[in-house]
Amino acid sequence: MNRICQLFQIKYPIIQGGMIWCSGWELASAVSNAGGLGLIGAGSMYPEILKEHIKKTKNNTDKPFGVNVPLLYPQTEEIMKIIIKEDVKIVFTSAGNPKTWTKHLQENGIKVAHVVANSSFAEKADFAGVDAIVAEGFEAGGHNGREETTTMSLIPLVRTKTAKPLIAAGGIGTGRTMLAAMILGADGVQIGSRFVASDEASAHIDFKNEILKAKEGDTKLLLKKLVPVRLIMNKFADEIVKAENEGASKEQLANILGRSRAKSGMFKGNLTEGELEIGQISAQINKIKPVRNIIDDILSEYKTVKQQLNHVRFSF
Amino acid sequence: MNRICQLFQIKYPIIQGGMIWCSGWELASAVSNAGGLGLIGAGSMYPEILKEHIKKTKNNTDKPFGVNVPLLYPQTEEIMKIIIKEDVKIVFTSAGNPKTWTKHLQENGIKVAHVVANSSFAEKADFAGVDAIVAEGFEAGGHNGREETTTMSLIPLVRTKTAKPLIAAGGIGTGRTMLAAMILGADGVQIGSRFVASDEASAHIDFKNEILKAKEGDTKLLLKKLVPVRLIMNKFADEIVKAENEGASKEQLANILGRSRAKSGMFKGNLTEGELEIGQISAQINKIKPVRNIIDDILSEYKTVKQQLNHVRFSF
Repeated sequence: MNRICQLFQIKYPIIQGGMIWCSGWELASAVSNAGGLGLIGAGSMYPEILKEHIKKTKNNTDKPFGVNVPLLYPQTEEIMKIIIKEDVKIVFTSAGNPKTWTKHLQENGIKVAHVVANSSFAEKADFAGVDAIVAEGFEAGGHNGREETTTMSLIPLVRTKTAKPLIAAGGIGTGRTMLAAMILGADGVQIGSRFVASDEASAHIDFKNEILKAKEGDTKLLLKKLVPVRLIMNKFADEIVKAENEGASKEQLANILGRSRAKSGMFKGNLTEGELEIGQISAQINKIKPVRNIIDDILSEYKTVKQQLNHVRFSF
Repeated sequence: MNRICQLFQIKYPIIQGGMIWCSGWELASAVSNAGGLGLIGAGSMYPEILKEHIKKTKNNTDKPFGVNVPLLYPQTEEIMKIIIKEDVKIVFTSAGNPKTWTKHLQENGIKVAHVVANSSFAEKADFAGVDAIVAEGFEAGGHNGREETTTMSLIPLVRTKTAKPLIAAGGIGTGRTMLAAMILGADGVQIGSRFVASDEASAHIDFKNEILKAKEGDTKLLLKKLVPVRLIMNKFADEIVKAENEGASKEQLANILGRSRAKSGMFKGNLTEGELEIGQISAQINKIKPVRNIIDDILSEYKTVKQQLNHVRFSF
């Protein structure tokens, strides 16, 4: 049995990335109901809000689901308490040290995956005893690694450093890209952007429509002096590019960024002044669909392309 | 029959990228003799030198080979005259408009491929009537596109815009990455960096050894205000990063760059002050090998991984 399916007790090794402002109970339960693994994105939630989303997810699916916890927020301890109390069985941690929480969560019967963007952090996560590793490439939306290693380069490198179940992320949102990532050495995939443009995502409809419009080259990795983040270009992003080109300092960039840009852009639909976090795969997304159709599309293309391997194109 | 093999009359759809200072007659003829397509990199050659390399390649292989011509040099017309006169059968053009030379070359019995970094240029190349298109992603070494689209994202996009034989480049240098690129929609691959670290490349031995040392994150895409180029970090590259962080203008960057940095680094082995153009795949290159062994390794891994597709990991 595929190791990711086995580990999380799911039908397909498709994880829906836990994303701030986009992945609440509705998206997570829809993905889990469709046979993937839905993740609630706790990064944009106060503890009480997270509790509500966990309860609603439980009410809407009897399948496994999880919570993604970026480890950089002050309320992490409270978040973890709620997760344990609410009997969540799967946690994906990111943006922090995997040693801090892995053991404690596992002692409470929770499977833990940790997100990395380079193979030395993958080694650290392995050493911390995580159950699975997510390796995310440069093309991914939102917060991103400093090495700018692409999924094509990253997955084979991570595979040489750990034998753990490996989930590829970044640039994946179709059956073709899923199969390619698995050929590179992954056991499964984490998909973010494609699920933002779904009926069930909590993203603002105007942001969803902006994803459909995004063409090749319309996203850029910005704010590298702070924390690198991939965004759709808009008035705000243009301002950042201009400042960066003129050598703006970390402090100056933080000033321009200010607060709540992500909420403003992705949740409230402010397309000019907000942060619109999305990956390069957006250029291949042309329709908002129900989650079930998205997963059907991916699986159907995956199977078709896998069968094409018998084609003469692949033989020489 | 695989379309790239058919088009160029070669055994394996493996093209050796034509690279300045690294790919002379010895590398090109070795690759062609091993069943791939060797390309002489004309970008770093005066017309008379190119002529000599073409003659030596002919003397060293009876298999098809080609010349890569970046269209940005003043001597392009003279270069093309030599290519036609010397009866070269295959030309790869890059860094320019595919309309300028394609028809003329084809009228002289030459197959033409053009290198692009985005799908709208792929469409233009298709319209110009080229015989094949090379699409090169962000992870590639040397000169690179402005959109920063990775190979994983680029190949499916280009595939939707053209039905021509498609060659993927960027991040490819193993059987696993080759198969992934073909799953993404390519008919064959162009490999650069892996062939620089070969016995037959004309690169300086110190540069070749530097490739073996390069780890993940050791290359960076720099000089974006001029022409983006992926380099191994060294004293010179650090200086560029510092200047860029401080908002250096195009002119200031051109001043720091000066002239002959590529020759100095890659051909003369000046590891501190020279430009060392290489791709992210360098992190996966650990040994200088003869071309024949490199191609054997790639094909053997390609076949192994292709067979693994029957493994339970890929089934659900």
